[in-house]
Amino acid sequence: MRRILVIGIGAGDPEHITMQAVTALRAVDVFFVLDKGEVKQELVDLRQEILRRYAPDSGYRVVYGRDPDRDRTTDAYVQAVDDWRKRRADVCQEMISTELADGQTGAFLVWGDPTLYDSTLAILDDIAARGFELGIEVIPGISSVSALVARHRVPLNQVGRPVQITTGRRLSEQWPDDVDDVVVMLDARTAFTEHVSQDAEIYWGAYIGTPDEILISGKLSEVAGEIVSARAEARERKGWIMDTYLLRRGAPPASGEAP
Amino acid sequence: MRRILVIGIGAGDPEHITMQAVTALRAVDVFFVLDKGEVKQELVDLRQEILRRYAPDSGYRVVYGRDPDRDRTTDAYVQAVDDWRKRRADVCQEMISTELADGQTGAFLVWGDPTLYDSTLAILDDIAARGFELGIEVIPGISSVSALVARHRVPLNQVGRPVQITTGRRLSEQWPDDVDDVVVMLDARTAFTEHVSQDAEIYWGAYIGTPDEILISGKLSEVAGEIVSARAEARERKGWIMDTYLLRRGAPPASGEAP
Repeated sequence: MRRILVIGIGAGDPEHITMQAVTALRAVDVFFVLDKGEVKQELVDLRQEILRRYAPDSGYRVVYGRDPDRDRTTDAYVQAVDDWRKRRADVCQEMISTELADGQTGAFLVWGDPTLYDSTLAILDDIAARGFELGIEVIPGISSVSALVARHRVPLNQVGRPVQITTGRRLSEQWPDDVDDVVVMLDARTAFTEHVSQDAEIYWGAYIGTPDEILISGKLSEVAGEIVSARAEARERKGWIMDTYLLRRGAPPASGEAP
Repeated sequence: MRRILVIGIGAGDPEHITMQAVTALRAVDVFFVLDKGEVKQELVDLRQEILRRYAPDSGYRVVYGRDPDRDRTTDAYVQAVDDWRKRRADVCQEMISTELADGQTGAFLVWGDPTLYDSTLAILDDIAARGFELGIEVIPGISSVSALVARHRVPLNQVGRPVQITTGRRLSEQWPDDVDDVVVMLDARTAFTEHVSQDAEIYWGAYIGTPDEILISGKLSEVAGEIVSARAEARERKGWIMDTYLLRRGAPPASGEAP
C-alpha cells in the first residue's frame, strides 16, 4: 500500500502551516508537484520556503509532472474539467507508480485547504477508483476564506445566519437566494460589480498573508471601482492574482429565530 | 493601547494549531477565559495542554471571568443573543481594564476558527464601540468544518458548485435553495432527520480530532438513525457533544456551466 498525504499549507503566509502539517511533511518520502509551467515562480518559491523551514534535512525527493492543459475554449465547463481531471489522474498515477515504492509516503502540497475548490482529492479518488490502491490522508489547512476574514477582523457569518461559498460565475448569474453573506472564490470576472445596487459591504483581499497582500473593504457601491483598479494593476504588475471576497448585506430585522 | 489577540486553536486536535498561533501564544501576557462553569472539563484540559505544549515558560497569566447566562426561555433568539453579548462584553471589558496594562497583550483562545459561529469578535467590537481602545488581531484556525471533511477525505464542494454553511434551525425549516452541499453547525435537533427523503449523502462527525472522535457517513436515509443513536449515546456518556455534518445531494447533470 502506498500512502498519499494531501497537505493543506495555508493561504500564503508560511506560518499558516499547522503542527499536524509539519509532522506530516517530515514523514514524506516523495513530494509530487504538477508543474503548470507558469509564471507563478513566487508560489514555487513560497512552497520551497515552507519545506526549507519546516522539513529541513528530511531526505525527501521532489518529483514533477507536466500538468495537462485544460480546454478553456469549450462552453462545456463540467465536461472539460472532468476530462482535464482524468488526464491529470493519468499523470499523477504514472508519477506515483514510478516514483513511490510500496510502503512509502508521498504527498501533494495544496494552497489553502485541500477540501475547498481544489482538485487533488478528486484526482486521487479517480486513481483509486481504477483499482490502484492508495492510503489517502487529508491534512486540513487555513483556507483563503478564513485568512481573508481574519485579516479584515470580521466574522464570516452573522449571528445565527448562513454563509454561502460560491464562484464568480454563479454570483454573476444572481445573488444566491436567502443568504446575506456570500464568499466568492475563483472570480476572474469581478462579478461583485454586477451587484453594486445592493446595500452591501465588501471585504476583498488579494495575495493574502504574503508581503504583497492588498485589503480593501467598505460599502460595495463606493469601493467596487477601487477594487477593480487595484486588482487590474496588481495582476498586470505580478502576472497573476489570487483574490477572494466576502459580500455582506445587512441582516433583516431581528425575527426571533434561533439556530 | 491594549493589544488583544483572538487566536483560533483548531477543532480539537492540539496539532491543528498553526505556527502563527504558536508565535502569538508566546507573545501573550494575559489569557482571558469566560468560564461557563460547565461540565466540559475535557475542553479546559485540552486548552491547558495546548498552552503547556506550545507556550511553556512564557510567564503568562490566565484570568477567568464568569460567563453570564443566556436567556434560553425566550423565543426572541436574536435579541436574547444580543443582550447576552452585551453582558459578556461588560465582563470582558472589566477583565481587560483591570488585568491588562497599556502596551500589554491579551488573548482569547477560540475553538475552531474565530470567524465562524463564534461571538468573541463581536464582543470585542462591542467593547471597542464603547470607546475602549483595543488593537484587535485575529489568528485564523482550522475550523470544525475543515476538520470534518478532511477526516472523511471528501471535498467540501462539488466542482464549480457552491456550499452553504448553516444552522440546524435553518435546515429544519428547509433545505436551502439552489445548493446541493450544506454544512450544518449548532444542530441540537438533528435536523438532518427531516430530510431523509432527499437522495443525499451525509458525512457526520463528533469530537473531531480528539480521542473520542466518531465518524459516520453514508446514504442519509440509511444512516440517519445510526447517527441519532450514536449522538445520543455519546452525549449521555460524556455530558456534552460537539458535532458537525455535511449533506451532499448529487449534482444535476453537467450543464456546461463554468465558475
